[in-house]
Amino acid sequence: MVKVGIVGATGYAGAELVRLLMGHSEVQIVWYGSKSYVGQDFASIYMNARGFTGEECKADDLDKMAEECDVIFTATPQGYLGSVLNEDILSRTKIIDLSADFRLTDVSTYEKWYGIEHKSPQLINRAVYGLCELYREKIRGRDLVANPGCYTTCSILTAYPMVAEGLIDPDTLIIDAASGTSGAGRGAKVQNLYCEVNESMKPYGVTNHRHTPEIEQELSLAAGRDIMVNFTPHLAPMNRGILATEYATLNLRNGSYPTMEDVQAAYEKYYGDEFFIRLLPKGQMPETRWVEGSNFVDIGYLIDERTHRLIMVGAIDNLVKGAAGQALQNMNILFGLDEKTGLTGMPVFP
Amino acid sequence: MVKVGIVGATGYAGAELVRLLMGHSEVQIVWYGSKSYVGQDFASIYMNARGFTGEECKADDLDKMAEECDVIFTATPQGYLGSVLNEDILSRTKIIDLSADFRLTDVSTYEKWYGIEHKSPQLINRAVYGLCELYREKIRGRDLVANPGCYTTCSILTAYPMVAEGLIDPDTLIIDAASGTSGAGRGAKVQNLYCEVNESMKPYGVTNHRHTPEIEQELSLAAGRDIMVNFTPHLAPMNRGILATEYATLNLRNGSYPTMEDVQAAYEKYYGDEFFIRLLPKGQMPETRWVEGSNFVDIGYLIDERTHRLIMVGAIDNLVKGAAGQALQNMNILFGLDEKTGLTGMPVFP
Amino acid sequence: MVKVGIVGATGYAGAELVRLLMGHSEVQIVWYGSKSYVGQDFASIYMNARGFTGEECKADDLDKMAEECDVIFTATPQGYLGSVLNEDILSRTKIIDLSADFRLTDVSTYEKWYGIEHKSPQLINRAVYGLCELYREKIRGRDLVANPGCYTTCSILTAYPMVAEGLIDPDTLIIDAASGTSGAGRGAKVQNLYCEVNESMKPYGVTNHRHTPEIEQELSLAAGRDIMVNFTPHLAPMNRGILATEYATLNLRNGSYPTMEDVQAAYEKYYGDEFFIRLLPKGQMPETRWVEGSNFVDIGYLIDERTHRLIMVGAIDNLVKGAAGQALQNMNILFGLDEKTGLTGMPVFP
Amino acid sequence: MVKVGIVGATGYAGAELVRLLMGHSEVQIVWYGSKSYVGQDFASIYMNARGFTGEECKADDLDKMAEECDVIFTATPQGYLGSVLNEDILSRTKIIDLSADFRLTDVSTYEKWYGIEHKSPQLINRAVYGLCELYREKIRGRDLVANPGCYTTCSILTAYPMVAEGLIDPDTLIIDAASGTSGAGRGAKVQNLYCEVNESMKPYGVTNHRHTPEIEQELSLAAGRDIMVNFTPHLAPMNRGILATEYATLNLRNGSYPTMEDVQAAYEKYYGDEFFIRLLPKGQMPETRWVEGSNFVDIGYLIDERTHRLIMVGAIDNLVKGAAGQALQNMNILFGLDEKTGLTGMPVFP
Repeated sequence: MVKVGIVGATGYAGAELVRLLMGHSEVQIVWYGSKSYVGQDFASIYMNARGFTGEECKADDLDKMAEECDVIFTATPQGYLGSVLNEDILSRTKIIDLSADFRLTDVSTYEKWYGIEHKSPQLINRAVYGLCELYREKIRGRDLVANPGCYTTCSILTAYPMVAEGLIDPDTLIIDAASGTSGAGRGAKVQNLYCEVNESMKPYGVTNHRHTPEIEQELSLAAGRDIMVNFTPHLAPMNRGILATEYATLNLRNGSYPTMEDVQAAYEKYYGDEFFIRLLPKGQMPETRWVEGSNFVDIGYLIDERTHRLIMVGAIDNLVKGAAGQALQNMNILFGLDEKTGLTGMPVFP
Repeated sequence: MVKVGIVGATGYAGAELVRLLMGHSEVQIVWYGSKSYVGQDFASIYMNARGFTGEECKADDLDKMAEECDVIFTATPQGYLGSVLNEDILSRTKIIDLSADFRLTDVSTYEKWYGIEHKSPQLINRAVYGLCELYREKIRGRDLVANPGCYTTCSILTAYPMVAEGLIDPDTLIIDAASGTSGAGRGAKVQNLYCEVNESMKPYGVTNHRHTPEIEQELSLAAGRDIMVNFTPHLAPMNRGILATEYATLNLRNGSYPTMEDVQAAYEKYYGDEFFIRLLPKGQMPETRWVEGSNFVDIGYLIDERTHRLIMVGAIDNLVKGAAGQALQNMNILFGLDEKTGLTGMPVFP
Repeated sequence: MVKVGIVGATGYAGAELVRLLMGHSEVQIVWYGSKSYVGQDFASIYMNARGFTGEECKADDLDKMAEECDVIFTATPQGYLGSVLNEDILSRTKIIDLSADFRLTDVSTYEKWYGIEHKSPQLINRAVYGLCELYREKIRGRDLVANPGCYTTCSILTAYPMVAEGLIDPDTLIIDAASGTSGAGRGAKVQNLYCEVNESMKPYGVTNHRHTPEIEQELSLAAGRDIMVNFTPHLAPMNRGILATEYATLNLRNGSYPTMEDVQAAYEKYYGDEFFIRLLPKGQMPETRWVEGSNFVDIGYLIDERTHRLIMVGAIDNLVKGAAGQALQNMNILFGLDEKTGLTGMPVFP
Repeated sequence: MVKVGIVGATGYAGAELVRLLMGHSEVQIVWYGSKSYVGQDFASIYMNARGFTGEECKADDLDKMAEECDVIFTATPQGYLGSVLNEDILSRTKIIDLSADFRLTDVSTYEKWYGIEHKSPQLINRAVYGLCELYREKIRGRDLVANPGCYTTCSILTAYPMVAEGLIDPDTLIIDAASGTSGAGRGAKVQNLYCEVNESMKPYGVTNHRHTPEIEQELSLAAGRDIMVNFTPHLAPMNRGILATEYATLNLRNGSYPTMEDVQAAYEKYYGDEFFIRLLPKGQMPETRWVEGSNFVDIGYLIDERTHRLIMVGAIDNLVKGAAGQALQNMNILFGLDEKTGLTGMPVFP
């Protein structure tokens, strides 16, 4: 049994990790870390866990956790892990970080977009970017995984094959996305109150959302050169789900534009064997309801023959493939388990 | 492997059965029955099933299904099973009926409340009422299970120990309940459109909802005499969940009223060992969010010392414990499997 | 023009007052009071007000406001008005209090249920309980109006004629109600976050909600003796609306129970001429969507011939008839204006 | 008093017209037209209208309505008005058409995108496109107004000044929009059921939504040449509201890109005096909650200095400015009334 600790178990992503780990046959949670609820039963905070665990929340103590845990998930705000991590800890345990601290390989990009100093830049190269479908071979055997962001997972996977295969011009890429409100976390803020969110759509982080450089980093790798995109997130009145609608101009090749068959072939090439990526039949578009509660990424696409643009749409559950589910998938890879273990539940609808 | 057929697989309860069966290690679905979608892929109707099944929907043909299935779930409107069931079919397969056709032991009560003739009254006694926590011993070895209604499961289980132990006066019992909209089914009706349901609460079936006689039948058995209750359902703007708030006057016994400890002891006596019933700590009240997606029944209670009434509150997921989950629990009992198989997922929150 | 000041203009009830006052032809808002947003434009907090007002929020200063305002609405937590009000202020302005401070005529009841000391009990008798349909004659000419609570307005008006006419036994009265989340206010609390409220129903304040004694006070007056009721509120996943479902046993009179015609006649007697009370046709039940944004109270009723209980259902918009709308109606009465001024907008649906 | 008839009064747009007309001092509704509810009280279908009208729904009979009505609103599916309108009717009454029949000046474009034959192409030139803020001078004195679509109103107004002033390259314009579900109408369709829409975001009409040519027609007029755009609508789980997020590359002019001040100046030039268009302060973005129930268009914008794109965001209430409100605004213009009459209610929040 893999002994698991969670820093930030009482946030939405942490609690989703608990839910998924409860359905995983090879793990045992030995540390429910929390800042706000130390000493309280986890199941008294998240009452869905009643009957599954009687454990109390403990303070976040990475050093002590490294003693007791084979793997630690850090579901914390940015800055935390960077400020406490060191080589000694990594020599004793593995860490899967759900925050942004080790996602960006360029420390100045991190410090510019996040507005904070990176306290352990020397460890950035030790981390691997945990986008499983793209990097699973690199993830094996590592001890520090930077679990991708929610919007980024959806945005990158949806566009990656098109950029990598040169079907679209990456400089024209525009990503317009909407997320359920669990992505905003469980902090007590007026803007996230029921009556403020319900019955409304709003954009936020326009031109400066922090997931932008993460998307650019990965798609630049796909393109083989530095690219920049526009990414605009919106808050949607629902609990879970991310939908990313992405637009890019098709590349003219030998005098003609790529066809739907070309696009399909490229997606199949990259994702044809992926369990968690479901390529939809031609012309069908994803909807977040079909992935709710699951680790799936649904992808659809259409060419606009009039404007020679490709419209790609991806859908995920932000708490699963966008956070806890992918973290678990990474854990499975790290420990040589079947990558799907604990993640085969059918999406919940309605 | 138990071979399973579903009549009405493309309704909400039927599709939830599919979801739960996909997580059950001992079954195989061999017949996706549907009236409206014959010949179409099940996963093209419920796209959450994409990647889980490539089967087509077939017409509902109970006779033929009896050949191929060890058990058939009928998730159909009332009247269907009564009109097609016979002894021959029951000699070849087992049936778990999610409709109301075999729930009421008194045929005239059925015909009065449902307004239709019962076409196979001779089979009523062959059926067992599948409220697992109360009747599991009677269910074993049977071939026809009447799976209880959603409101009734919640309403009966919440009040049963109080009535059976004589702590409350059952003639004063008032049950006020709210349900998510999946309980209204997937039929295309104006009243169930998003804009009609959203941002509104409404009562319906006031004084005449068909779950009333079912509640009365079971609580009369608990009381040892015929009782009548008031039951008022409400439609709530949410997908899933039933909350039943129940009021009854405490019985004065030897000059004093039952205490919270008496109430707790009675609940513990009946449900202390039940996995799927979670008795909440003193003073805590259930909320439907904590049971969503699961087979749990959460029960809380408080005595009003001023009015000498007991307020009992129960919460379930109407599609799981109120329909598909309990049906699966009944299947597990019928086939001698662990009653919890396929039903141990933690509730999904948020 | 009536000069109006609002203490607590940036809460939900206060902001709804602003919305309604903007549609009132005879008033001018001269003081937008706020505790949290002093110095900020009101329209930068509630951006729906952009284009309607450019005024800044000012600190709550009842003494100074009394100089400038013909009437002050206090939309504040309980305890505030009681602690600052005095005769001098009342000699200079009129006050309509949306808090509970002057609703209960018995100071000890107030202190017991609210758990705070009443700081100006000598003024309680100066106040009039502002349930307009019942007390409009008493309200005229007064300077201190205790605007009723949201649940109480709905609960009392729905049951009042039945109790006053002796059609039901008030000791059997059970009130089960649900409210939209705006009733919980705009404070930044985890329990009111979108993801905590959405997709869930929950009871709260079971046996001890503070609106209970207010309901009992008024229905005791109707009954001519002290009565006690059970009142259970629930939080519903919607912005606005209160639905109260009320149960009581019919009184046997001369050997027979009241009929639907008797019930209808009693309702007509009390409310037949009331613009804001809409008695629904026989057998129809209210739904909160039909009153949203308006000052209406919709009332429906049905007799259960089996149990001899009457089920009465009332629906209001908690922010309008349950708070700001009724406050405005009271203002109209105080200033001799047409009671409906500013309140004749049709409910907004969907 | 202007005598008003409504064809399709029992659809969502028609019923919203009724609501707004009830608050208009100069009109009287004399014909509630309906296909499905002839002979039933309008207020029994839309119970929010109880107390406002006791009129029955009548069949849609344009000829007879022309006798009795000074103006007729047609809130019908496309194809209806085109098939029944003629010069004789227009000689007797004015028509404001909320359908698409007379919006497109090119009949072949209409027939291609809508897939139906236009039955009265000779009347297309008689119609004026009723986007009030752009064309109010042309609207005066006309007898046939093509009321713009919901998405189009929001999309066009948001981009118009930028295109007209040459600040952006219109060939790069991408419009990503989300709408509340009332935009889908009141037809009984499975896809619009509460449980299908709730907790989900989905794109639809990708590359082929019928509002595309309408947007292109108007923005081509602004650009002075034919342009094409990408327009992708999404269904959002809310009743009302449209949010359009629009992207375009800034035009390099004399070696530099337009600044935020340039953008602001252009918006001010076109909309600075418009009551119904609220230009938000620099950097602020619209949210649909702030316009709900009103005729406002809120517009915000930001330049991405990295990609030299302008992101423009517009928000409207799809049933008001996107349908009934703009129709009423057009009526006010046609009859020489103050354009704001009946439309000055503050948006309803929450």
